[in-house]
Parts: sequence; structure tokens; C-alpha cells
Amino acid sequence: MTGKDTITAISTPPGMGAIAVVRLSGENALQICDSVFTSPADKKLIDQEANTLHYGTVRESDEIIDEVVVGLFRAPHSYTGEDLVEISCHGSVYIQKRILELLVSKGARLAQPGEFTMRAFMNGKLDLTQVEAVADLIASGSKAAHRVAMNQMRGGFTQEIKKLRDKLLGFISLIELELDFSEEDVEFADRSQLKALLEEIKQILQKLRNSFALGNVIKNGVPVAIAGKTNSGKSTLLNLLLSEEKAIVSDIEGTTRDSIEDVISIRGIHFRLIDTAGIRHTEDAVEKLGIARTLEKIRNAAVIIHLLDARLPEEELIRQIGHLEGYSGQEDKKRIVVLNKIDLVQEDRIESLSRQLKNLMSEKEYLVSLSAKKGIHLDMLEKALIEATGMDTTNENDVIITNVRHYEALEKSLSSVQRTATGFSGNVPGDLLAQDIRETIHYLGEITGDITDNDILGNIFKNFCIGK
Amino acid sequence: MTGKDTITAISTPPGMGAIAVVRLSGENALQICDSVFTSPADKKLIDQEANTLHYGTVRESDEIIDEVVVGLFRAPHSYTGEDLVEISCHGSVYIQKRILELLVSKGARLAQPGEFTMRAFMNGKLDLTQVEAVADLIASGSKAAHRVAMNQMRGGFTQEIKKLRDKLLGFISLIELELDFSEEDVEFADRSQLKALLEEIKQILQKLRNSFALGNVIKNGVPVAIAGKTNSGKSTLLNLLLSEEKAIVSDIEGTTRDSIEDVISIRGIHFRLIDTAGIRHTEDAVEKLGIARTLEKIRNAAVIIHLLDARLPEEELIRQIGHLEGYSGQEDKKRIVVLNKIDLVQEDRIESLSRQLKNLMSEKEYLVSLSAKKGIHLDMLEKALIEATGMDTTNENDVIITNVRHYEALEKSLSSVQRTATGFSGNVPGDLLAQDIRETIHYLGEITGDITDNDILGNIFKNFCIGK
Repeated sequence: MTGKDTITAISTPPGMGAIAVVRLSGENALQICDSVFTSPADKKLIDQEANTLHYGTVRESDEIIDEVVVGLFRAPHSYTGEDLVEISCHGSVYIQKRILELLVSKGARLAQPGEFTMRAFMNGKLDLTQVEAVADLIASGSKAAHRVAMNQMRGGFTQEIKKLRDKLLGFISLIELELDFSEEDVEFADRSQLKALLEEIKQILQKLRNSFALGNVIKNGVPVAIAGKTNSGKSTLLNLLLSEEKAIVSDIEGTTRDSIEDVISIRGIHFRLIDTAGIRHTEDAVEKLGIARTLEKIRNAAVIIHLLDARLPEEELIRQIGHLEGYSGQEDKKRIVVLNKIDLVQEDRIESLSRQLKNLMSEKEYLVSLSAKKGIHLDMLEKALIEATGMDTTNENDVIITNVRHYEALEKSLSSVQRTATGFSGNVPGDLLAQDIRETIHYLGEITGDITDNDILGNIFKNFCIGK
Repeated sequence: MTGKDTITAISTPPGMGAIAVVRLSGENALQICDSVFTSPADKKLIDQEANTLHYGTVRESDEIIDEVVVGLFRAPHSYTGEDLVEISCHGSVYIQKRILELLVSKGARLAQPGEFTMRAFMNGKLDLTQVEAVADLIASGSKAAHRVAMNQMRGGFTQEIKKLRDKLLGFISLIELELDFSEEDVEFADRSQLKALLEEIKQILQKLRNSFALGNVIKNGVPVAIAGKTNSGKSTLLNLLLSEEKAIVSDIEGTTRDSIEDVISIRGIHFRLIDTAGIRHTEDAVEKLGIARTLEKIRNAAVIIHLLDARLPEEELIRQIGHLEGYSGQEDKKRIVVLNKIDLVQEDRIESLSRQLKNLMSEKEYLVSLSAKKGIHLDMLEKALIEATGMDTTNENDVIITNVRHYEALEKSLSSVQRTATGFSGNVPGDLLAQDIRETIHYLGEITGDITDNDILGNIFKNFCIGK
């Protein structure tokens, strides 16, 4: 995929706009651009300083295709690390296509998806997690997703992994030194220090791996099901949440939405509200399919808002809180019990009910009293939703992983670290120990791209847009 | 709409892409950009040279929103003629929106559609026809439409109008001089020269006005109806044309297509083929509506391809050529008579039929013999289509008008020039003559923008995209 050839692509979003940018990167980027570009003073790009802008025309023989501005970057100080030009043209689809075709006719090659970024990686401008962050950044549709991707692009995550890896590399060199002198039975590596180091590494890897649950939620949104008996106020609550928050999200183009989902955004996190109000018994085959799909979504929800009608007798409420279809209290799911319609009952009743219900609930569950109809205490529900994601205890600069590939590599690293620790306590021979550590180092290296293979690279870049 | 305030907009096409460009133009463009932009060496844009590129980050307080490259232009050497910066960011919809909002919070104002170009016009960077050419250029979806828009942007059209206007201005100053000395009955203006000049101006205006028919066709495509009796081969011909040419057009995004139209491109001109094959008698109300719409389209077609089955008896062919529904031979429409299925008849029959039919046809009509089924002589039909548009006799650099506003202004100019010429011959008093000439000068000035009013400007700019 890499090479010395010069690649080109339209880098701006597809379609018509005021302007569009055609990129050209590689050894002959300047020469190829010079062969189609004419400046008023007849200057050649190849003679110009780096990081400069040049007005002129793009021509095919005598025909003027467009008036353009060319931005000129020189290796290694460009996005790709190669000579690079960006041709800013009028945003006609026809013109974009003509310029691209013209550049190809002059010797450039159409870029593969992500190939500019691939070159940045090959030329050491970005490491692999930064490359992945570029894709996440472009796809980011919420404040939280943007923040996580930006942190990752700024290299925080890689630094942490690299530090661990360096420590392990120091560790293994001592172990291997011992192996060389195995007949003399010396110990270069201080065993208690090494034990402490392994423990520290395990802690860090676990923390990173565990951040994936939150990372996933940030990247893809939190699926939230609103459950409860008929008349508990599900539709009213849904409408209240939507009327408060919907506008924010519908502003952001590119948010993927499902027909049975409505997306709201609270403190930069997207919550996908699954509408269960439409579920009823039916004989219609198509409708049945739709309902089955909704039920599946409820089973997969990360958070369930369980609505109770505060006017019902205590015994009935206690019964309902104990029996929620699709929720056992054992799974990873979080539940927010909502005592609704508090505007219709006495305040002291709310207080006593809350106390009783809390006694029946686990510590992982939340209780909120509100009135969906009157819009009372909606803020309490929003607070509970944020807490349920774990976002409230996360620091602005905490490293959060969002990438399945990283998660899997961390899992593998972690199990080899654990094997090492076990072997270490059980006095396993040094060479087996070394093998486990080597494995950990390998997996950590896969994350940062210190170890690469073509399958990994291919998978990463195939999801990129063309022109990046 | 104009002013000293700094305007901002996303200038690249809407949606997600590798990169996007946010533009900022006006007196405070550099200061506003500096307030959100941090370069690694902490340099300020305000201290930098014009036409340079700067890498850095856009920040809101401590939060990094994106890593960007800023292109810096200084008045008057920018698109708008003002200080202008282009922030090239990652093409996430979220990031584009954040940067735009941030710039607005720092004192920029969201630009109106076309407002950057409006400023270019106000600052004398573009005249009004060039402004209109920018919009046409962005919308251009074919080679011919692109060429016409580019010629117009290069100022050819305005030069021609300006020359005429200057001549008239010289003319009127002499007439008015005469008016000042009216009691002395002198003649400063050589009457025979003036008469010749008026005639010349009339010729040029007529030529420009008449180019609108072609211009309109180039801009919007040529509506072509394929007519003929059942079994004359309409569907076969349509499929042949489409299979040869369709791929070219479907490549170009943004081509507006109607469900009953297929667009093909021949020598850069778009032809909109109206499918009449589906027309049949029906009682279905919805279908009837569709058919009425198709018939309306046939009536409005600029070219009719009239298919005849060459196997039919001569008398029948003569009858068919004389009676084509929706075509009288009198209107502006062009007809191409196609003698189809020539693979199924003797060659000498084709020759004698052609001779006979030609005798019955006017000079404005075309005759082509072909076989749609075997694909024989398709090139002849394509040649006839091009000739029917008048494109074959047009020079690459001929000025062609495509704009209804120009057409109307030319019509008005022309009728006042004609009034002047008539008055001139009829010895109308000099002051009335002067009034007619002033009117012509006014209308010509409206085209170039030497005379502007807010309604004209408002109409021109409202159709622009935001960010241009």
C-alpha cells in the first residue's frame, strides 16, 4: 500500500460546496501539480518556499478548468511527511472530478481510503493509536466522543502503553541475562521489585481494559430502555426528555439513528432512548417482527429506566420493583427506578415510599422521584443517567479506550501478565517466564504499532474515508 | 449585507469528510482567529506574512478542539479583498460546528449565502457577471456548462458589454453637447457614423440575446422526446443511447434527474431523454396524472426524435411524417426524423425513401437512417442532436449567455436601441434620443453591475451556497 508513487484524492466531503480540496502527496507532488498549474507570474511550485499559498489556474492544455489556490507543504513538514499540495478549487462536483482525473493523467495515482494517514504512519508522523484516533475524530458526533478521540490523538494513551512496555523490556533483559548465567545461579533482577512491577502493570492494564465499557458508551451512545407498566407514564417521560434535549442532537448531522430510537445528549454523552411504548400483543407478522426487535434492544440496553406510578399501593410497587421483565439485577445493566407522578401524591408518602424501595434495591441501582407531566426533577434523572455511565467519576484527562482492537490486545496482555505473575510465584523456570513477558510486550506493541502486521493495518485503514 | 464585521462559514460541502474548511473574512479575521489558534512556537497570525500556512491547534479555553492548518491571506490580495483566513480542520461534522460556534463567540458573524462573494464584488474583485459565473461554475455539471461559466468568469462577456456601453457613453456625450448648443443648431455627432454605430450595437446585442437559447440548453440540458408509432423502435433506441452514454452522466453527482427522464451526455452537452414508451390509455387516476406530465414534457421538448419504421409502405411513412402529435413544424422545436430498422430493408430502398422524405421536410429538420437494434449509424443521430442545439457552429470562445437576468436586460437594451435607431431616422428631438440611449446604458450597466440595486443583488446572492 505504501510506496514512492504520488497519490491524490478529493479530501473534502463529497458533493457540491463553495470550495473543495484535492490533495496530492508523494515524491512528485510538486512536479505533477506544476504540470497543470499556471500562476499569473508563471512561477513554479517547485521553486517556492514550504507552507505558502499560490493563486493561479488549473489547465488541461489550453482549457482553464478552474481558478484555484494551491497550498504547498514540503517533506517532512506535512501531514504525510512527504511533499504535499492541496488544491483549493470551486466546489463543483464536475470541477473536482476533472482536476482529479487530470492529476491522474499526469502520473498521480488515486489514493486508497486512509492512504494519506497510512503514509503519515509509515513516515513516523503518527503512531497507530493516533491513526485510529484520526478516524474516530472524523466520526465523532458528540462532545465526549470528540474529547476521547482528541486525547488519544494527542498521544496520552500511547505514552501510557509505551511506559509499561519499556518497563517490561527492562525486566526481560534482566531475566534473559540470568538465563545466560543460569549455571552460576545468579539473580540480576530483584525479585520483590519485579513482583511489585508486575502488580503495577496489571493494575494499569486492568484500568485501561475496564475503561472500554465507558469508551464504548461514549463512542456509540448509551442504549436506554424506558420500562414500566401501562399508565406508569413512559410516553410522557420520553416526550419530556426529547423536548428538552432532542434539538441538540438533531443539529448534528451524521448521528446514526434507529427508527425505534431517539437520541438525546446530556453533558456530551449520547443516550439512545428505546421506545417501548408501542409494544402490545399482535397477530400481525410484520408488527411481531418489529416488536421482537424492540425486545432484543431492551435486553441489550445498558440502562433501564423503570417507571413506577407513585399513586399505586405500596405492596403493588414493591411487587413491580421485584419483577421487571428482562432484568435480574445480576447482569451488567444499570437500573434507574423512577417514582413518577409525585405531583399527584403527598410529599410524606414519597419520602416513606423512597425509604422502603431503597431498602429493596442494590447499591448499583438508582432511585429518582419526579413528575414527567409537570417536568419536576428531570435534572435528578439526568444526573442518574450520567452516573450510570461512570462518566461523573472520570477525569477530563483520563485515558479511555474506545477501540475493540485495543480492548482485545489489552485482554491478551493482561492474561499473559497474570500468567507471568503466577509463574513467578510458583518458581517457573526463567525461560518460560521470559516467554510470557515477551508475549505481553508483543501485544502492547500491537496497540502502539511498534509491532505491526499487514492484517492489522489493512483492517484499520479500510474504514477510513478516501482523501484522509 | 455588507459591512466591516467579520463573517465566517463552513465553505466545504456539508457532511463528513477527511478535511473541512472554515472561512473567516473581514477586518478582524486575523485577531479573531488568533484568539482561538495556538501554534507550537506561539506565533501570532497577525505577525505573519500573507499567503502562508500555519500548523497549530484550535482551542476553547484549555480544551483542544482540533489540530488544524490555517491559511492566511491579507487584504486586498484575497478572494474577498479583505483579510481572510481558512481553517483546515478534520472533517467531523461535530468539529466543524464547534469551530464555527467558537469563532462566532469570539465576535465573528455567520455569513449569509454568497456573502464572501458579495464582498469580493463590493471590493471590486469581481464584477456582477463574474459573481453570477461563480454560482454557475459551482453548479456546473457538464463540460459545456463548465466552459460557458468559466468564460463568463474570465470576464469575456463583461468586456463585450462594457465596450458597447463605452461607445454609447461617447455617443450620448456628443448628443448632450448638441443639446447644450441646441439654439445654435450645431451637430457634433457625425450622424452617419452614429447610425452605423447603432446598427453595430444592435447586431451585437442581438447575437448575445440569441445565444441564450443555446446557453439555456447548455446550462439545463436539452429536453429530447422520442416519438413515433408503436413498434417504430422507441425503447430500443432509448436503450441504445443509454447504454452508450449513460455511464458518463451517472458518474456526475448532483445531476438533477426526473423519473421519466434519462440524461446522456454528447460532446459535453446534456440531453434529457423523455421516455414516451410508457404512454398508454388508462383509467387509473395516478397513472393519468403521470401521463399528463409526460405529454407536457414532450410539448416542451426542444428536440423531437421522430422514429419511422423503414419497412412500412412509402405512403404510410409520408403520412406519418406529416402528422406528428404535438409538432406543427412552425414552432421553435427541432425535429430529427429517424428512419429506423435499415438492417431489415434493401439499401436502395433506404436511398429512395430518404430522397422522398427529405423533399417533404423543411431545412430546419434533420433526417437520419439507422438501426437501433444493430447500433448502426448511432453517430449520425448524435451528430444531428449536436447540430440541433447549434453547438456545432459555436466557437470555443464565443460569448454565450445562460442567465435569465442577462437575457432580460439584453432584451430591454435591444428595444431601447431599436427605439433610438427609429427615432434617429425619424428626426426625433435630441433630448428624447438621449433618453432612449440613457436607458440602454442603464440596462447594460445592470448586467455588469455598474448599475446595481438591492433587489438585483438580493436575487443573485440568495441562490448562492453558504461559505462562498
